[in-house]
Amino acid sequence: MLLESTLKKIRPLDKSLEIEAQKRLDSLTKPKGSLGKLEELARRICVIQGKVPPRLGRKLLFVFAADHGITAEGVSAYPKAVTAQMTDNFLRGGAAINVLARHHGVKVEVIDVGVDHEFSNPPGLRNCKVRTGTDNFSRGPAMSRPEALQSIEVGIRLVEEAAAERPFVVGAGEMGIGNTSSAAAMLCALTGAAPRAVVGRGTGIDDATWKRKVTAIERGLQVNRPDPKDPLDVLAKVGGLEIGAMTGVILGAAAFKIPMVLDGFISGAAAQLAQRLCPQAHDFLFASHLSTETGHALLLETLKLPPVLDLAMRLGEGTGACILMGLMEAAIKMLGEMATFESAGVEKKLP
Amino acid sequence: MLLESTLKKIRPLDKSLEIEAQKRLDSLTKPKGSLGKLEELARRICVIQGKVPPRLGRKLLFVFAADHGITAEGVSAYPKAVTAQMTDNFLRGGAAINVLARHHGVKVEVIDVGVDHEFSNPPGLRNCKVRTGTDNFSRGPAMSRPEALQSIEVGIRLVEEAAAERPFVVGAGEMGIGNTSSAAAMLCALTGAAPRAVVGRGTGIDDATWKRKVTAIERGLQVNRPDPKDPLDVLAKVGGLEIGAMTGVILGAAAFKIPMVLDGFISGAAAQLAQRLCPQAHDFLFASHLSTETGHALLLETLKLPPVLDLAMRLGEGTGACILMGLMEAAIKMLGEMATFESAGVEKKLP
Repeated sequence: MLLESTLKKIRPLDKSLEIEAQKRLDSLTKPKGSLGKLEELARRICVIQGKVPPRLGRKLLFVFAADHGITAEGVSAYPKAVTAQMTDNFLRGGAAINVLARHHGVKVEVIDVGVDHEFSNPPGLRNCKVRTGTDNFSRGPAMSRPEALQSIEVGIRLVEEAAAERPFVVGAGEMGIGNTSSAAAMLCALTGAAPRAVVGRGTGIDDATWKRKVTAIERGLQVNRPDPKDPLDVLAKVGGLEIGAMTGVILGAAAFKIPMVLDGFISGAAAQLAQRLCPQAHDFLFASHLSTETGHALLLETLKLPPVLDLAMRLGEGTGACILMGLMEAAIKMLGEMATFESAGVEKKLP
Repeated sequence: MLLESTLKKIRPLDKSLEIEAQKRLDSLTKPKGSLGKLEELARRICVIQGKVPPRLGRKLLFVFAADHGITAEGVSAYPKAVTAQMTDNFLRGGAAINVLARHHGVKVEVIDVGVDHEFSNPPGLRNCKVRTGTDNFSRGPAMSRPEALQSIEVGIRLVEEAAAERPFVVGAGEMGIGNTSSAAAMLCALTGAAPRAVVGRGTGIDDATWKRKVTAIERGLQVNRPDPKDPLDVLAKVGGLEIGAMTGVILGAAAFKIPMVLDGFISGAAAQLAQRLCPQAHDFLFASHLSTETGHALLLETLKLPPVLDLAMRLGEGTGACILMGLMEAAIKMLGEMATFESAGVEKKLP
């Protein structure tokens, strides 16, 4: 019911505000268009908020942790226990995302949506566990359809709750050993791409592990036959709980008209799911960066979302999203704080 | 004398520290290499400072303003008076660089190195005027050789003075109507490139103005015959005062072992001059971004400095440099603040 009502709330954006935003940008003391991608970010945020200049506010990043049964196939460079260990690291502030979030003034919320570990209520961890990790999707479905739906609802609820304080922007990151396998399987299921064309090195696997990963995904697709026309079926059969939760954040952000920043390959898979559930979700999304993970370029092409940054990163956790949030804030400050040709007494372009 | 003594201070870097920096990076709770270009930034800063992790500190940006006699040829989209008007705008905090600098915590110093305007000592403006703008280089030399030298010394002295407080990083930006013409002429003089291959649209000129710009530069090169083997001759004959000052900042930063961030096309021309005067200056330089100005890609290739960002910007003022300074600070915080696999109790990569 929550998913359906959320999808119904998502409305096409009134893009006429782009003209007003560009007019404002062109009145500022700089050559027209000279701020490049920053101007595009500013225009899009104006359209989403329906305001020129848009208001600033909290930058909020949800980091979802969940485990993946597919790790039993030996597809990862790190042991599965690292999902829980890194979640603890997030809570203590020692991970890359914590450092970047502090640097950029981004508030991080850490959510256990399916870690195969019993945490003893550490401060700062939100317990939204749907189940203790997925099943091995190369042998059968990763989870049930109701569980997949439940994971999406986790993300929607978090945005719903946060929307009361009107965050300026939300983003999503993840931690889940094995989750590039799930994301790649979803990409194959939804687009028909061949696993060997999109499967990457994840956290840094060798050739033998890469071959096992491709085989595991090929088998998972054969065994489960996910229906590309049924996004929930794809999520349930070969997806992950954090991917479902990120899908929920995307849909929730679109429903509440909040700009939403994607991170890398995993959140891209969630965006694909969200766009299949509601094509208009596209207009609320920002692709922060191009990851070096093999399938990411193709994934962003299918999303029709050109990445703003290319920093050769492949870390996840929301690290790329965090950097873009800082740039989005800068873009909006330009719009709000720069002098105009008139106010500064600067002569305009020659006729 | 100051230029010579500065050049003598520049020593080759001890790159063995890269290994120690990478070892530290690899001990942090993230897959090896997964921070991509941020890791490269961190490694390079360690080598320049000679410390792992390097210390943080002030981020300092010098913005040089100067006028250009070449504007008499009708090569610009804006009237020459805009140089002084934008300088005032910098001092009041209304320009793009002010907004970005506040956002990124960068300290901006505005320096009049050759504006054709008498400022009445406004607070915040440093008066280092060498002369009131250059002469029209399409009719004769832009300035004398002693003036060119003097402009370089302005930049060196500023870094010398700032070095007492050990800034973490310095950068340089500029304002000077007509200065893409000077930078393009220098690029042609130093590399033999044809003006029509490297002349761009500057602040946004139309086709007719572009043709005039190409012709003016072609004539300037014929009239002056700058000697590509004599960098000072190139600066004096077709360069600009702010380009000279930025060359001085680059050399000063190298002499004092401070990482130095380039902005766009104009500071790139200064870097080319600096590298001709002292090839080792290369190792202290960071190319912040790829500008959309036509000759910038070629310029960065000749500098052997791949740009970190590509935001389709072409504004100057130090705007690109400012954004990269923020990222460099983030990269160093990663090195200093992230937990290690050991300290966080996170299991390492599987054998």
